[in-house]
This record gives sequence, C-alpha cells and structure tokens, in this order.
Amino acid sequence: MAHPSSSEPRWKCVCAYDGGHFAGWQSQVSGASVQDAIEARLREMFGREVRIHGSGRTDAGVHALGQVFHFDAHWRHGPEKLLAALRARLPSAIQIKTVCAVTPEFHARFQASGKRYTYRLHLGDADPFTRPYSWPVFRPLDLAAMNAAAAVLRGRHDFRAFTALNGPARVDTVRDLRRLDVRRRGRVIRIIAEADGFLYKMVRSLVGVLVAVGEGKLTVHDVRAILASRQRTAVVQTAPPQGLFLVRVFYRPGRRSTAATTDVDNDE
Amino acid sequence: MAHPSSSEPRWKCVCAYDGGHFAGWQSQVSGASVQDAIEARLREMFGREVRIHGSGRTDAGVHALGQVFHFDAHWRHGPEKLLAALRARLPSAIQIKTVCAVTPEFHARFQASGKRYTYRLHLGDADPFTRPYSWPVFRPLDLAAMNAAAAVLRGRHDFRAFTALNGPARVDTVRDLRRLDVRRRGRVIRIIAEADGFLYKMVRSLVGVLVAVGEGKLTVHDVRAILASRQRTAVVQTAPPQGLFLVRVFYRPGRRSTAATTDVDNDE
Repeated sequence: MAHPSSSEPRWKCVCAYDGGHFAGWQSQVSGASVQDAIEARLREMFGREVRIHGSGRTDAGVHALGQVFHFDAHWRHGPEKLLAALRARLPSAIQIKTVCAVTPEFHARFQASGKRYTYRLHLGDADPFTRPYSWPVFRPLDLAAMNAAAAVLRGRHDFRAFTALNGPARVDTVRDLRRLDVRRRGRVIRIIAEADGFLYKMVRSLVGVLVAVGEGKLTVHDVRAILASRQRTAVVQTAPPQGLFLVRVFYRPGRRSTAATTDVDNDE
Repeated sequence: MAHPSSSEPRWKCVCAYDGGHFAGWQSQVSGASVQDAIEARLREMFGREVRIHGSGRTDAGVHALGQVFHFDAHWRHGPEKLLAALRARLPSAIQIKTVCAVTPEFHARFQASGKRYTYRLHLGDADPFTRPYSWPVFRPLDLAAMNAAAAVLRGRHDFRAFTALNGPARVDTVRDLRRLDVRRRGRVIRIIAEADGFLYKMVRSLVGVLVAVGEGKLTVHDVRAILASRQRTAVVQTAPPQGLFLVRVFYRPGRRSTAATTDVDNDE
C-alpha cells in the first residue's frame, strides 16, 4: 500500500536566510533551525506535520541566498498563492524566493548536480553592516599567491584533507571543484567555489588555506602537499561561518547525482 | 573657578551603528542606547564617567554611517591608540571610524552646519539581508512625480508641517533643505536629504509624503499646500525608522550654527 503522502504534489522552493539568527539549516536543538521555522509555518498552513528536504545542511551562522528544499502537500490554489502564504508569517530572517510544482522524481538533495558558495573576506575592520557577513582579515593578502593556490585546488581531486569529517576511508571524498576564484573589489575579497558537491566544512577549509597562503603562512607548494596527503591536519584551519553564503544549487532534470547520496555530503 | 574637565583635551569621533540593536542614540532606558554603550566603554578606559555629546539624537531603529560626537579626556598616547582602544571592546553593532584631536571651541552639536541623511526604500519584498535596512513598498512608485514633489520641498521653508513635534509656535522651524533627491537603482530607491539642520522626524515625514506622491495618494499640488499650511496633520505619515541612515554631519570651523541651539533640533 502506498504511503499516504506519496500521491501528493511535490513543491520545490528556493529560499534565502540570514544564518546568524539560526543554529544551522538542521539543528539538534528543536526549534532553533531554519528547517524548524519553515516546517512550523507549513504546520500552520496545512494543519499537519509537513517534512521539508533540503539540498544539504548549512552550519550554524552560514547564510543562504539560494538554498533549495522540497515538500509534498495538496494545495488547491496556484504556486503564487502558496508562495504568498509561505512568505506571510515566516521570521524576517528567512525569505522564500520561489515555489515551483515539480514531478515526484525531483529530490532537492539526491538530484542536486552541483552547488555554488561565496565566501566574503573584509580587509581590516568592517563596519556594523558588513561585520555579520564577512571575515575580517587584518594582515595584507597576496592575491596572486591565493589565485595560484586556487589553481592547484581546482579540478577533480580527493579532498579528504579539506573536510572536518573523519569518516571511514572507504567513503568517497573525490569531488570536482569546477570553480575556485579569488576576486577583490575595494576592501572586500570574494572567494567563489563551485563543485558537483562539497564535503563537510570543505568550503571553509579551502578558504582557511587560501587565506593562510595570502598571509604567507603557507606556500603554493604546501597546498599541493596538503591536497596529496589526503589527511586532515591542524595546518588546515576552518574559516568562520559568517562569511559563507550558499548561493545556488544546480539541478539537471532526470539525472541523479550519485555523489550526493553519501553520508559525507552534508554540505556546509 | 574652572570646571575640572575644562582643561582636558577635546576629541571628535565619527561613528557608525546598526540602529536595529539600540533604543536610539539617547534613550530613557539606561543602557539601551548607543550613547550608553560608548560611555560604558569610556568608563572602562578612563576609570571615571566620561560624558559624550552627539551632533543630535537618532530615533530607535535609525542607523548611522557618520554620526559625530565629542568628549573631553586626558590621553597619554596619540589618537590612533585612542581609536584602537575605543574599538577594542564596543558592541559589534557600533564602530568608531575616526578620532581627531580638536580645539575646545569645537562642539559636535552647536557647531554642526548641516547634515545628510539617506533613506532606503525597497520595491517589493526585500531579502533577509536588506530587510533590516529598508522600507519595503509594494505599490509601483511614480519616480517623476516624486522628483517633482522633491523640487517643491527643496530650499528654505518653514517645515512645521513636517515635524512630529508640536512645540510652541515661536520655535524656529525654518530650515534650508539644500538637497532632496530621489534615485533608483534596480529595486532600491534612495532618497537623499541634506539641510542646515532637521526638525524632529523631519526626514521620515518628507519620505512619507514623497512615497504617498509616488503611490498617487497625494499630488504635487497637495505637497505645496501641506508645506504652506505649516500644520502637521495625519496626511503626513512618518516612514519607519529602519530605512534611515545618518550619513554625514558637516562642520564649518569657527562658526556656530544658531539653528542647532533650539530645542527642536533633536535630529532623527
């Protein structure tokens, strides 16, 4: 016999949130996560528990401009009215950007074919409007060295040295880092990372290493050695969460991302 | 006999703050204002009460990019070290931007020769990163009409109809509104207001009227009549505080602004 909800229409949502107000996308502490807040609103709307499925988790303090989730529910009106109802009473630190009807084959996590993150650094003390959304760096940074290190890291590699997860060795930690750019505009440096999937705390570990290179603490040669070691050590520091933004989740219709089915794909 | 502090050097400071975290520049509730937070830090540094004098008050929820204040204190080191010490342990929602040594004739309020404010409107629902810093407007706005109304308001006028203060009629409510511009960039509309001084809630009243014109609720002719009436009525709505930024305070060395000595010059 089919699950009661299996015949319900599936909805894909894109949302933004200020991670500084939450204990992450999904939290151990009930009520404190972004997912809890959205599920609480859906409970009000539908009069029952509605579980949402995110493209992956974000850590406490990490922001999103384009997180994706899906849920199943009957809704008599169009997606526009669903969007308006969802927006009506969410905390102001969360915004649902779009709602689309999708086929039951769509899955926000298993069908994700890639993700893009941006990390914001600020050269020197940031003002009160920038502080909650960047990592202040007080030493001068060598952008050319950072870009040279980024070139070493780009491409398909085993990124075991760049994850905080000490999982079993058999877990697949190979990812295709399609993009890793370092761009400066005034006192703001943006590091853009795009891959078919990210390991736990991988973006913040990449940023930590790039900043260490920029400060002259590590060389491009060191970065090559760290990557080849496939071992996480204290040399790789994790950048703080408030500079990180999940910008976009990519989907290819009808194709499942096998990388996203492993336990290590709790994207930060 | 001279006041004990009269021989102490005077320091001029420029600061920024996120007004969403405070009950205004100066508050009835002790400890909740920007001034209280800065004075608490000065008390730690100097081991005694140090009173600061702002260029004017900002209401609860109003932000500042360039508020100015002064205080008197002996300091053995240079302004750079004073700046570093002040920055060291303030709440992250406040940033001291500059510290300068000034002559005892300088007064942050009485010598201010003008101020510039910016008000941010957002066309439609803003994302969680923009919401705390703008007023969302859900109707289309006629920018040309708003600019025509701004032209009526610019210049030297009695702005009694644009202040929330119902003071005695003899109080001087004439101000020189040197600049009132409406500018659009994407979904953000900025209203820039500059004058020799502003009456209580004057900027937010001007914005409320300009938005009413943009929405078609008031005509340019109505605005002319409101200005000429010199009477505050319910037709003039006060825009919410979170869109307002005190951008800059102007000083002309050696000249006192007489307008700033009246009770009504509690700038918002």
